[in-house]
Amino acid sequence: MEQRILLGPGPSMVPEEVYQAMQRPVVGYLDPELFEVLTSIQKRLRLVFQTQNEVALALPGTGMSGMEAALGNLIEPGDSVIIAVHGFFGARMVEIARRYGANCKVVQQTWGQPIDSEMVEAALKETPNPRLVAIVHAETSIGIAQPIQDIARLAHDYGALVVVDCVTSLGGLPVHGDRVDVVYSAMQKCIGGPPGLAPITVSPRAWERIQTRRSPNLSWYLDLRLLWDYWNEPHIYHHTASPTLLYAMDAALRLIEEEGLENRYRRHLETAQALWQGLGELGFRFMIDEPNRLPMLTSIEAPVNEAELRQRLLRNCNIEIGGGLGEWKGKVWRIGLMGRSCTRENVDLLLGALTEMR
Amino acid sequence: MEQRILLGPGPSMVPEEVYQAMQRPVVGYLDPELFEVLTSIQKRLRLVFQTQNEVALALPGTGMSGMEAALGNLIEPGDSVIIAVHGFFGARMVEIARRYGANCKVVQQTWGQPIDSEMVEAALKETPNPRLVAIVHAETSIGIAQPIQDIARLAHDYGALVVVDCVTSLGGLPVHGDRVDVVYSAMQKCIGGPPGLAPITVSPRAWERIQTRRSPNLSWYLDLRLLWDYWNEPHIYHHTASPTLLYAMDAALRLIEEEGLENRYRRHLETAQALWQGLGELGFRFMIDEPNRLPMLTSIEAPVNEAELRQRLLRNCNIEIGGGLGEWKGKVWRIGLMGRSCTRENVDLLLGALTEMR
Repeated sequence: MEQRILLGPGPSMVPEEVYQAMQRPVVGYLDPELFEVLTSIQKRLRLVFQTQNEVALALPGTGMSGMEAALGNLIEPGDSVIIAVHGFFGARMVEIARRYGANCKVVQQTWGQPIDSEMVEAALKETPNPRLVAIVHAETSIGIAQPIQDIARLAHDYGALVVVDCVTSLGGLPVHGDRVDVVYSAMQKCIGGPPGLAPITVSPRAWERIQTRRSPNLSWYLDLRLLWDYWNEPHIYHHTASPTLLYAMDAALRLIEEEGLENRYRRHLETAQALWQGLGELGFRFMIDEPNRLPMLTSIEAPVNEAELRQRLLRNCNIEIGGGLGEWKGKVWRIGLMGRSCTRENVDLLLGALTEMR
Repeated sequence: MEQRILLGPGPSMVPEEVYQAMQRPVVGYLDPELFEVLTSIQKRLRLVFQTQNEVALALPGTGMSGMEAALGNLIEPGDSVIIAVHGFFGARMVEIARRYGANCKVVQQTWGQPIDSEMVEAALKETPNPRLVAIVHAETSIGIAQPIQDIARLAHDYGALVVVDCVTSLGGLPVHGDRVDVVYSAMQKCIGGPPGLAPITVSPRAWERIQTRRSPNLSWYLDLRLLWDYWNEPHIYHHTASPTLLYAMDAALRLIEEEGLENRYRRHLETAQALWQGLGELGFRFMIDEPNRLPMLTSIEAPVNEAELRQRLLRNCNIEIGGGLGEWKGKVWRIGLMGRSCTRENVDLLLGALTEMR
């Protein structure tokens, strides 16, 4: 079957080396060979997360399991948390945190606008004993690159932990994992594997919090303490790890190492700039101004018959782009340039197809 | 890399056709081609679950996510539930149900003994308004095939739903999905795929219960209502489904269809009987008497230096068998004959290796 040109919000196109890795035979969850893969992934994850954290692993689920694990393992019922929302995924954080019993203070920003650190500080001032501040680094629903550092500093000043959703940014933008507390992502975007695993890293401070919970994590499946005891000595059985997905992740991370993080960031930015120039020339209006625009996810105002045009792109040109989510459903197109999908050739293919469709 | 001979508690050896299926290119989570795969899997799952239930899908996690989803979606905090325990996985059900706020009435049976329906009836009599009875069909920790039908009838008489763990049995033993309410399994045992997805089916009665919950499922990631809305029209985005794992599952289920369920059950039984004869001749003592012994998982008393011998089997003969779990750790060996691993050739290989090691 022909490979789709995947220029939507993810998954991105999977490199041949990763498909190849998935042909490696499945072994048992206690096989010493698998433990080597687990160790290799942990080392490589620390590199892409740009962290010295000891705790770095891949959850047995998609990126959304990362969101739930990050929030759930830190929250105990009744805890106050601050969640900054400027798109679809921020709103999901609120939904999940509430299910875990948190009192959520929502810092609501207009969709498409970055969140000011002042807004977060106001919430911190109003919230006694805030457990955490959660924020999305790369809001895939709108295409904004959210500055994190000032907000993280403020949160720490007020004694709160910082949870950052890097589902779309990890591997394509610097994430500075050491300056925040819990960062999670997904395998199928700028990491370049198939969907199915969620990388996560936890700071010593957040890990201490998890160790000293009064009650266990509500989800047993996503309990980071149990998962960590499997990922490391004494390798206590928790779930049957998927060697296939772990081989894929290790191979995808190896490709990142080989390319080099800085080269990879540059490739994502320069390829995006070529896309932006072409879209601009075609008269498309960008939803996000350039200083805050994500390289790996560009949102533009969509034509009125957007759904039909996207279908035509998929059927006739074999190219996938994304429609809008939530408030922006039917109103925007989301064009992804992630991982292996992020090439000048794909940009040219898409611009050519869009030119013809006009 | 050489394929391990996987004769442990799972994963089983993955057929070449399934590896091949995973080479099919990844597509987006809203791609019409992926929807066709989702539909095909649902149909095929109804066949192996032996059910007319409309709700049949694969959860984005391993078998343990199936356990958590089955219990979590039915339980609301404060609900009374009855859990029958005669091994490691029954005990896990108790742990998960408690995290979800259930009052657990535990029907504790000695490890290695089947659970009598009288024990469950006594618990039903003592429990006002029991929400559900949960039980493991094929306890992988001990190797027992637990009769379910009488217990299911009793539970229904008392107004309780019936949750059955078929992680190890589905695809290798009849599961009679229509006589109980929620059945879940895993992909990597008698289904014959790599680990990573958990098939689950829900009866209309249990689905009604899920629809009329007063509070949402505590886990957002494993919320069956949201998952079902993705698996079917209107295909609302919940998580980024893993096409790779879904292709694998569809291919594994197609192989089951081609073999035929009855043939597959017979193959598992007859291959196990050959193993049992050989193990008996070698003087091994069986932990479970034959009428209740699982074909796909045989537990035997282990030699004193069992860990060292298992290591030797793995290193020298490339054969994996399982050690004991929980109470039986260090005391038993667990030999799996599941899916593609379940062949006379593998039985002969193992018996030969064990003979040499004596």
